[in-house]
Amino acid sequence: MKNIYLIGVGLIGGSFAIDIKKNNPETVIYGIDANEDHLDEALAIGIIQEKAVLDDIEKADLVIVSIPVDATVKLLPTILDKISDTGLVVDAGSTKEAICKAVEHHPKRRNYLACHPIAGTENSGPTAAISGLYVGKTNIICEVEKTTFKLQEKALKLFTEIGMRIRYMDAVSHDKHIAYVSHLSHISAFMLGKTVIDKERNERDIFDMAGSGFRSTVRLAKSSPAMWTPIFEQNKENVIETLEEYISNLQHFKKLMEQDNFSEIFNEMENTNYIKQILNGIN
Amino acid sequence: MKNIYLIGVGLIGGSFAIDIKKNNPETVIYGIDANEDHLDEALAIGIIQEKAVLDDIEKADLVIVSIPVDATVKLLPTILDKISDTGLVVDAGSTKEAICKAVEHHPKRRNYLACHPIAGTENSGPTAAISGLYVGKTNIICEVEKTTFKLQEKALKLFTEIGMRIRYMDAVSHDKHIAYVSHLSHISAFMLGKTVIDKERNERDIFDMAGSGFRSTVRLAKSSPAMWTPIFEQNKENVIETLEEYISNLQHFKKLMEQDNFSEIFNEMENTNYIKQILNGIN
Repeated sequence: MKNIYLIGVGLIGGSFAIDIKKNNPETVIYGIDANEDHLDEALAIGIIQEKAVLDDIEKADLVIVSIPVDATVKLLPTILDKISDTGLVVDAGSTKEAICKAVEHHPKRRNYLACHPIAGTENSGPTAAISGLYVGKTNIICEVEKTTFKLQEKALKLFTEIGMRIRYMDAVSHDKHIAYVSHLSHISAFMLGKTVIDKERNERDIFDMAGSGFRSTVRLAKSSPAMWTPIFEQNKENVIETLEEYISNLQHFKKLMEQDNFSEIFNEMENTNYIKQILNGIN
Repeated sequence: MKNIYLIGVGLIGGSFAIDIKKNNPETVIYGIDANEDHLDEALAIGIIQEKAVLDDIEKADLVIVSIPVDATVKLLPTILDKISDTGLVVDAGSTKEAICKAVEHHPKRRNYLACHPIAGTENSGPTAAISGLYVGKTNIICEVEKTTFKLQEKALKLFTEIGMRIRYMDAVSHDKHIAYVSHLSHISAFMLGKTVIDKERNERDIFDMAGSGFRSTVRLAKSSPAMWTPIFEQNKENVIETLEEYISNLQHFKKLMEQDNFSEIFNEMENTNYIKQILNGIN
């Protein structure tokens, strides 16, 4: 993989670029981004070696698409139009059904591998990119059978070289489950942050009272709205379902409190302590 | 402070003991705990130097009460009955109004300092105790004027020696604000954990999809139900109020999604990004 084109030079794409270049010094990473400032930053800090434009990707061995998922849906057909017969296109979107659907009948569908690397931080932009982000993390690959076998092999080599584990899944199941284990967490954090800010905005001293528990629980409320709004939009039905269940659980908890049924509140929490075993399995 | 009695030898009390003993090698830490196994553990790992019983605290220079808040309300009057005229009693409870009320007319009220050290982890028991837990953390002291000045001074010296910052507050305000910045976080994490476990319990592979964001957001769902149930009970009214506002914000978010009003969802998240500035101020 001599020529790699990075479409979107932020946290996700940038972190790929850093570790791929480290493992393959002969590779040249070209950057394409709608945000010219980000492109300059990425060049200045060495995430990319050259700036490029969309027409250049006919020369690409690999294109990594790491932009908001609404932009991916719009741009992916054009990228496939331009890719060579031997070029591979991967994305990193947190939704998979709409993206796969956008190219399902594309003549170059077999050059695309649908990926969702489960990794990130609450930060964004080129300066948020870090080496080692993907070590031990899971990369979910959807509809693997629709990608040419040789390009599957190339992608696998690349992902395992930077330390990722691979899991295969269909796109519909991916979107359903990721709503629970990722998208809902972001909404719960955003709304927790909003609830506290609304109440305490004018009481600066109050945040002295907040400890590491609050920090941990609202951390995701620092996430990028530009990235998350289209995710919620594309995964609307699943996300609404998770929200309904979450709200219902909160209402039940409140009702138990109103009824002074604290023995049942104890039980609810004790049953949920089972999360310890689950978290021990998460990197 | 030669003789310090630790009532409750878990995470909170144990972490105090470790750092106080480090700064004051001549001090002897005596342990009292309803759980005999915890007492043996605390002795074995050196958190306490001797086991003791409640009647011994007439010899105490300092008593640290770090047990669930319902047990504190019950036991604190008895502890004050037994403390000497020059002995100091502090607690570490996450609620303050009920605890202060339990001793407001006690003849030894001036020997008690109402404290809430904003520190902890999601772990519990003597083996969870760690050195340095309190460095840079806030200790909220309530109704300071009700404690003898000389004992205030002693307590301040002790807390600042282990690296704590002090904030003064009335008990009613403490309970109101702590419901937002701590108690609500715990419920949001517990109910997020419950929502995901209920849905995914039989799908073991799904938790491979969970990343560090999920881990961070549900971390507090590992907390001890024995500690948290009485906190919610004592702070019932404030906690219900925070839950109502949190549920209302979640319902509003869901409604915006149902209405496909994603520009407003973007705004909601962007406004909440303000949390970054707040979190930067939290240790």
